[in-house]
Amino acid sequence: MTITELQDLIARSPYLNWLGLEVLALDENSIEVRAKWREEWIASTRLMQTHGGILAALIDFAADYALVQRIGHGVPTIDLRVDYHRLAKAGDLVAKGRIVRFGRQVSTCEAEVLQDGTLIASGRGTYITAPMPEKKPAP
Amino acid sequence: MTITELQDLIARSPYLNWLGLEVLALDENSIEVRAKWREEWIASTRLMQTHGGILAALIDFAADYALVQRIGHGVPTIDLRVDYHRLAKAGDLVAKGRIVRFGRQVSTCEAEVLQDGTLIASGRGTYITAPMPEKKPAP
Amino acid sequence: MTITELQDLIARSPYLNWLGLEVLALDENSIEVRAKWREEWIASTRLMQTHGGILAALIDFAADYALVQRIGHGVPTIDLRVDYHRLAKAGDLVAKGRIVRFGRQVSTCEAEVLQDGTLIASGRGTYITAPMPEKKPAP
Amino acid sequence: MTITELQDLIARSPYLNWLGLEVLALDENSIEVRAKWREEWIASTRLMQTHGGILAALIDFAADYALVQRIGHGVPTIDLRVDYHRLAKAGDLVAKGRIVRFGRQVSTCEAEVLQDGTLIASGRGTYITAPMPEKKPAP
Repeated sequence: MTITELQDLIARSPYLNWLGLEVLALDENSIEVRAKWREEWIASTRLMQTHGGILAALIDFAADYALVQRIGHGVPTIDLRVDYHRLAKAGDLVAKGRIVRFGRQVSTCEAEVLQDGTLIASGRGTYITAPMPEKKPAP
Repeated sequence: MTITELQDLIARSPYLNWLGLEVLALDENSIEVRAKWREEWIASTRLMQTHGGILAALIDFAADYALVQRIGHGVPTIDLRVDYHRLAKAGDLVAKGRIVRFGRQVSTCEAEVLQDGTLIASGRGTYITAPMPEKKPAP
Repeated sequence: MTITELQDLIARSPYLNWLGLEVLALDENSIEVRAKWREEWIASTRLMQTHGGILAALIDFAADYALVQRIGHGVPTIDLRVDYHRLAKAGDLVAKGRIVRFGRQVSTCEAEVLQDGTLIASGRGTYITAPMPEKKPAP
Repeated sequence: MTITELQDLIARSPYLNWLGLEVLALDENSIEVRAKWREEWIASTRLMQTHGGILAALIDFAADYALVQRIGHGVPTIDLRVDYHRLAKAGDLVAKGRIVRFGRQVSTCEAEVLQDGTLIASGRGTYITAPMPEKKPAP
């Protein structure tokens, strides 16, 4: 997938649009995007920090799309784990995702969120990369 | 904390407001809220499912606020883990959080997200419940 | 699977034998075992606590075998997450596992480890419950 | 801490001794050890693979001791997360741990387990690096 194709795919998702994602770089195993800050991200007006739910969404996106841009279609998330290292201030964020292990059934990716070059959060997701089974009556 | 006090605390957070949270129930160890669906939650207009980042934010909120409503102030999230069980359709979600272990330094909570009574996602968070250390010059 | 069948399956695994597992209870969704303490479990002779690696192994076993005893064969672990709540003293441990969500491709289980009725550790694992794909030349 | 000091610390732990750990390398942020295979690690005599509980223990050790060798004393594990990538065959394993974020209250480390240079498992742990609070009567 090219940067333009991926940017088009993002544009078709209302939530990814709301995150204001701009693709900065892509290669076979990794992806880098910028997310444009918006007021609705603020967790508390006293500290003005971006809510952890936004950081989790960026970790999930970057981990997931490291796979998506390689295999060309969406993959279901099995689980997501996020470590919070520092508070994010008001302002844009950069998210980087990388494939740790590409498997025929399940794949693992890691991602990090940075602000002005400082690590804010990092984490991992696992994704189903097997072809979906045909629907059968539930057992 | 009463439901009214907690609802007021939520109202002061731009992100929690955006999630449209209404507190349904509270007790010493647990919390239940409804989150009002909005178009910006849609991950893909083909499937109309709510994005996993919203589910992660609800798991984090419910786990975190099971503690917050008990101890009366915010607590930093150490990490968050989310298991995705089924796609959420367009529509409101209910999140329930519960304290698993309340510790003097670190506490663990679990939470689940349901839609029309069906389990959509579940997970856990750990939180710092120690008093914050005094600021010293960084080593 | 009956308790006797499961106990026989455990007996064929050198590692599970080493953990000294005795099946206490089984039903369609859950399992309970006792693990017999041994000196090699001690993390530090000063505190005499059981090492976290043993607790992780018990969480993995109980979560995994809640599935195994239901579907009748082993399932690959995708990932494992363990929360440590208290130090375990020298002495036997009880592990309980439960299926959270049984899926056609991936299943999620949770487990806890107790000592004398006190919660020591708890956690979750995800497992591949899809039939294994046929081997093809690697892409 | 030097390699010799760390090897002495390991020698005082019955469980770490049982894992057969030999320290290969150390620096301010990382650690590398070899674990000597033993028959009790076998999960199933059909596949002869090492049990996931051993891999989890090695991830925990390597993540934890990346901190221990830097700060000079043990630190409590908050939680541990392990991704299983491939089956380990009978044979020694190498574990590498690295500090991701050293914090005044909580620190995050990552680790991987390799066999003959192939990635078998990887994961993360969080640890309490704050000084322990003085004991007070429980609230």
